[in-house]
Amino acid sequence: MGNSFGKLFKISTFGESHGEGLGVIIDGCPAGLEIDEAFIRNEMQRRKPGQSKITTQRKEEDEFRILSGVFEGKSTGTPIGMVIMNTDQKSKDYGHIADKYRPSHADYTYQEKYGIRDYRGGGRSSARETSARVAAGAIAKMLLKHFGISIQAYVSQVGDLKLDKTYQELDLEQTEQNIIRCPDPEMAEKMIDFIDDIRKSRDTVGGVVACVAKGVPAGLGEPVFDRLNAELGKAMLSINAVKGFEYGSGFEGVKMRGSEHNDAFYTEGERVRTRTNHSGGIQGGISNGEDIYFKVAFKPVATIMIDQESVNEAGESVTVSGKGRHDPCVVPRAVPIVEAMGALVLADYLLLSRSNKL
Amino acid sequence: MGNSFGKLFKISTFGESHGEGLGVIIDGCPAGLEIDEAFIRNEMQRRKPGQSKITTQRKEEDEFRILSGVFEGKSTGTPIGMVIMNTDQKSKDYGHIADKYRPSHADYTYQEKYGIRDYRGGGRSSARETSARVAAGAIAKMLLKHFGISIQAYVSQVGDLKLDKTYQELDLEQTEQNIIRCPDPEMAEKMIDFIDDIRKSRDTVGGVVACVAKGVPAGLGEPVFDRLNAELGKAMLSINAVKGFEYGSGFEGVKMRGSEHNDAFYTEGERVRTRTNHSGGIQGGISNGEDIYFKVAFKPVATIMIDQESVNEAGESVTVSGKGRHDPCVVPRAVPIVEAMGALVLADYLLLSRSNKL
Amino acid sequence: MGNSFGKLFKISTFGESHGEGLGVIIDGCPAGLEIDEAFIRNEMQRRKPGQSKITTQRKEEDEFRILSGVFEGKSTGTPIGMVIMNTDQKSKDYGHIADKYRPSHADYTYQEKYGIRDYRGGGRSSARETSARVAAGAIAKMLLKHFGISIQAYVSQVGDLKLDKTYQELDLEQTEQNIIRCPDPEMAEKMIDFIDDIRKSRDTVGGVVACVAKGVPAGLGEPVFDRLNAELGKAMLSINAVKGFEYGSGFEGVKMRGSEHNDAFYTEGERVRTRTNHSGGIQGGISNGEDIYFKVAFKPVATIMIDQESVNEAGESVTVSGKGRHDPCVVPRAVPIVEAMGALVLADYLLLSRSNKL
Amino acid sequence: MGNSFGKLFKISTFGESHGEGLGVIIDGCPAGLEIDEAFIRNEMQRRKPGQSKITTQRKEEDEFRILSGVFEGKSTGTPIGMVIMNTDQKSKDYGHIADKYRPSHADYTYQEKYGIRDYRGGGRSSARETSARVAAGAIAKMLLKHFGISIQAYVSQVGDLKLDKTYQELDLEQTEQNIIRCPDPEMAEKMIDFIDDIRKSRDTVGGVVACVAKGVPAGLGEPVFDRLNAELGKAMLSINAVKGFEYGSGFEGVKMRGSEHNDAFYTEGERVRTRTNHSGGIQGGISNGEDIYFKVAFKPVATIMIDQESVNEAGESVTVSGKGRHDPCVVPRAVPIVEAMGALVLADYLLLSRSNKL
Repeated sequence: MGNSFGKLFKISTFGESHGEGLGVIIDGCPAGLEIDEAFIRNEMQRRKPGQSKITTQRKEEDEFRILSGVFEGKSTGTPIGMVIMNTDQKSKDYGHIADKYRPSHADYTYQEKYGIRDYRGGGRSSARETSARVAAGAIAKMLLKHFGISIQAYVSQVGDLKLDKTYQELDLEQTEQNIIRCPDPEMAEKMIDFIDDIRKSRDTVGGVVACVAKGVPAGLGEPVFDRLNAELGKAMLSINAVKGFEYGSGFEGVKMRGSEHNDAFYTEGERVRTRTNHSGGIQGGISNGEDIYFKVAFKPVATIMIDQESVNEAGESVTVSGKGRHDPCVVPRAVPIVEAMGALVLADYLLLSRSNKL
Repeated sequence: MGNSFGKLFKISTFGESHGEGLGVIIDGCPAGLEIDEAFIRNEMQRRKPGQSKITTQRKEEDEFRILSGVFEGKSTGTPIGMVIMNTDQKSKDYGHIADKYRPSHADYTYQEKYGIRDYRGGGRSSARETSARVAAGAIAKMLLKHFGISIQAYVSQVGDLKLDKTYQELDLEQTEQNIIRCPDPEMAEKMIDFIDDIRKSRDTVGGVVACVAKGVPAGLGEPVFDRLNAELGKAMLSINAVKGFEYGSGFEGVKMRGSEHNDAFYTEGERVRTRTNHSGGIQGGISNGEDIYFKVAFKPVATIMIDQESVNEAGESVTVSGKGRHDPCVVPRAVPIVEAMGALVLADYLLLSRSNKL
Repeated sequence: MGNSFGKLFKISTFGESHGEGLGVIIDGCPAGLEIDEAFIRNEMQRRKPGQSKITTQRKEEDEFRILSGVFEGKSTGTPIGMVIMNTDQKSKDYGHIADKYRPSHADYTYQEKYGIRDYRGGGRSSARETSARVAAGAIAKMLLKHFGISIQAYVSQVGDLKLDKTYQELDLEQTEQNIIRCPDPEMAEKMIDFIDDIRKSRDTVGGVVACVAKGVPAGLGEPVFDRLNAELGKAMLSINAVKGFEYGSGFEGVKMRGSEHNDAFYTEGERVRTRTNHSGGIQGGISNGEDIYFKVAFKPVATIMIDQESVNEAGESVTVSGKGRHDPCVVPRAVPIVEAMGALVLADYLLLSRSNKL
Repeated sequence: MGNSFGKLFKISTFGESHGEGLGVIIDGCPAGLEIDEAFIRNEMQRRKPGQSKITTQRKEEDEFRILSGVFEGKSTGTPIGMVIMNTDQKSKDYGHIADKYRPSHADYTYQEKYGIRDYRGGGRSSARETSARVAAGAIAKMLLKHFGISIQAYVSQVGDLKLDKTYQELDLEQTEQNIIRCPDPEMAEKMIDFIDDIRKSRDTVGGVVACVAKGVPAGLGEPVFDRLNAELGKAMLSINAVKGFEYGSGFEGVKMRGSEHNDAFYTEGERVRTRTNHSGGIQGGISNGEDIYFKVAFKPVATIMIDQESVNEAGESVTVSGKGRHDPCVVPRAVPIVEAMGALVLADYLLLSRSNKL
């Protein structure tokens, strides 16, 4: 259970890290959308391992194939099925952990839950699963673009290195100019050097991805339980290694007074706007037409190249040794995943909002 | 849409602040559970307005009535319907904001979404809606108790006043000993004084509620999208005024190294345990048997007793004046709501986990 | 589980025959719909027991109360909560069957499923539950009416007495002119006499309700699993005592040749139409703009006034004696229920169809 | 929308008749189930075109491949992804109907709903889609077998040729001994001859498939809307060409008296049983432990080899000429599809029933 996401623009995914393949079905993409395969490919490149010196050197080609739902270049309204075959599986790499529980991985919990697990590369719990999300998210982005909505994420923190600028003060077009995907070139360099040091020490570190959606019309969100912020939060917390989510003023906002935090309304032409945006574009769980922004916290990658204490399936003490090719910090590759999940939520809620009124 | 929560232990709520009444249907409560009405009543008292000098002086009796699903004191497996009639409605209080958008409330977004709104007391967007959640959560708690699971929340921050102790260092039984619901008596006093000052300045302030669940068996959680942490996050972010959610090491965890953050496994008798618990009891989206803990950030209450700039439905500039009886800080009354939503998630995932294996 | 129906126009019901009350939440009714309470009341009168000599003489007042979701006479887009309190409960009537399983009732299956049951009047399995459906269906009908869609059911068979006219050959406006709700006055009289005889013999008999929806636009239906006919079928089969569903040519259609059964297309002005309508207005699971029609088979009412062989909870042989006030034939009162469920499906699918295209 | 089925044992399908491929994700198969690929292959052979002289001579190899969710021969609890690539596509066959609406097909309704359609072989509306259902159903059957439940369908009627024996009077093991899949050898021969005649006249005919499930424990079914019979009905009505569903006494039952129709209870050892089974094994929407049986009506195949009146997308009168390779009667190939859908419902409800009690 739990492998579907969304209500009207719904995705269902399958696939393990080292099985035969992964894939996704998008059920509910409206008919008539032009499907740009080159764009999907580009999005997947952004997530792909081996893309720079600060990501894992593992090679995964991530070649997707659309099997259905698209006819003569356009969506037909029927389910879009996509598969990504696994090619660089190297299952032999994983023999050494077949019966050991890697600390802070999902080995133990999958074993407890199911009584069986595909231990190769983490199986279903591997971040490889997110490739299917990025493929689906690319189609959600096309739908959003059709309606003038864009979504863009960037790295705002790595370890202690934290951007002190708001997204308005940054030039987000700089994001893709560097391998860490931080729109501040100076900070980007610091972050890259820092991650490189971490990598050399065979360790890992966490980080934060910030995300902004522009052009979102007022009215998206389904209170009370399916508030837009709640669904965005769930989407982000469903990504591997995520430990926290905040939107608008977030955890810092708790320190403010109401008189300072409230976003005063004014009129700009026909449009009602707010002078500040501590609400992060969402009030009462519904978008208000201002930019939506939120932050997502990623823990340090659990796979480290250092020996660790653990137990095996028999309950015996064992040492887990680092081996293989892994990311010292997940955030640069997490940027397109955050965007994909955000796009999926917005596409879904855009369709849901069509039922609001007579 | 969006007024149901849960998959197998599912609640659906209805009701506006100043309508005739509110209510909830619980569909999926297993048969045979003893229903303790006094316990439900007690939970609702904890959420009730007017319970202390630092909460709103508004009176709401919150008398619930169980209409179905319980026979001779036990759940029957059929839907449990509960209603809470509104008695202290005072709709006249709200004439002054009938066509004005209160800053950082949901007035504007509801109007945009639906083209119509019940403006009295915020209508559906009022926190009064959470009374139905607390009633349902009380039943979820009884189910959890039957399986040896407890959940307890407390206030860990008000404005800048932040507990620097972990939940393990606190005596959580102290929580209900003071009106702010902070288990550290010294800090509690400071927080109460601070909120009292805020109240006198006719302003409001935010805060953080922490929550701990004990006795949760390993194996709860439905990856990949319905991870236990993702569902908890959604549940919390669906509560009025919540701006952020983190579990385990949370946003602070991003600063750590993997070697420091990873939770080493060891064996305690038959049981596999972790030496630290940065995972917050959840690995790969599935509970691992350790305590689950998380934090929830609440913004300052939007209703302040100070004049504010705004616009009305016609788009004209207006002043919104504070009026009525409101909370200077929401966190003391949010404690039972956080527990209720947490209990609902755990009850639901407990039932879901029954399908894991043959 | 299983007490909700619909996707975007979703109802959730609760309540037992002899509990405190029943009710329904409608989540997803678009905002701005004028809610005519007199119309709801009238629909409930049509379902009400005691309405004629051929229905049970049991008295239930079926007074509903709208608690939320309607403001100044219009739907607001928030959940519409309705309750119907039980007044004529007479629980004492049921002591004699407290531990006996009435043949072809749900006593045994509820007991097996849940290990406990509210035996009074069948508890949740009582057809009294359908009062909530009729209340919700009345609102669905108002929504349909706004879009020019009507739905009308009638009795087409009682026992062996079967109308041999198609709905096109009947004057459906006659339906409500007689107590059996058969639009053919002559046949109506025969049916009434027949049921009266059945009643006198302390027995019961089955019947068929036919239903026609007019004005349904082409394009409603969600293949492949949620075909319009599949959802209509489920809706009807969820009504108490229903044993079969067919649409268009139905079971008779299997005898036809394809050349005879196929509905030839032609153009009427701008509109594509079919010369015959063996499809019952649905092709490939999607409405084609022609009238939708279907039939629903109801078994003889299980409660008879004749002694029957059975067993009790202890597994001992017992005699179940008929007692109480029951319907000799369910179909006259089933007419508004069939309409209600049909209206709920159509309202839901109308909203779903808004997401078909860009 | 509408391409998923089930709650806990949930399938999602994709794929068009002449696209690149079809597939299915099973989400919720419990871990630890032995997956017998040869059995799946055999089930798919039973549905496959070209299997006998009375089915279409079209060749589709229906080779499936399991991409995930199975490890070392057992289900792991993660989604089982399966693909079936299309090889014998022959799209050129369909140029002649690219803009014509074939009578009683889904061409017109898909065009109206989506504004675009993949016209090749009916696209998504083709019965080829059911291959994915049969693959998933085979896994559901394995799960049922583990719990001692079997499901078996057979042809009970073709045109006017109708078996007058109940399933108890038949030797269901004979079903697969002939190409029509009728367990009565004499009737089977008549049916085969009849279909062969129909085929020679370039026409088609309808039929009925009956189905029996044995070993189903009491307690499956989720009233009130998700009654077991309602879900079975929906499952069957979601199959291409189905026009009706009835269970137990069905449409014939309406003619009976309650005193005749009611199934008296008695005790057989520890087990409560019924003397007759007009209930079809389901009472109040919940299985009672007796055999479940139902019938499904299939209309004559819409593709005939005879010229037909129709219109094209421009609304002009056209003639649709029969061409290609099609089935004169769908029922022999429908038998495994009915079983598959029945198995999916029972597997799902078996898992759901685990939440009934504490």
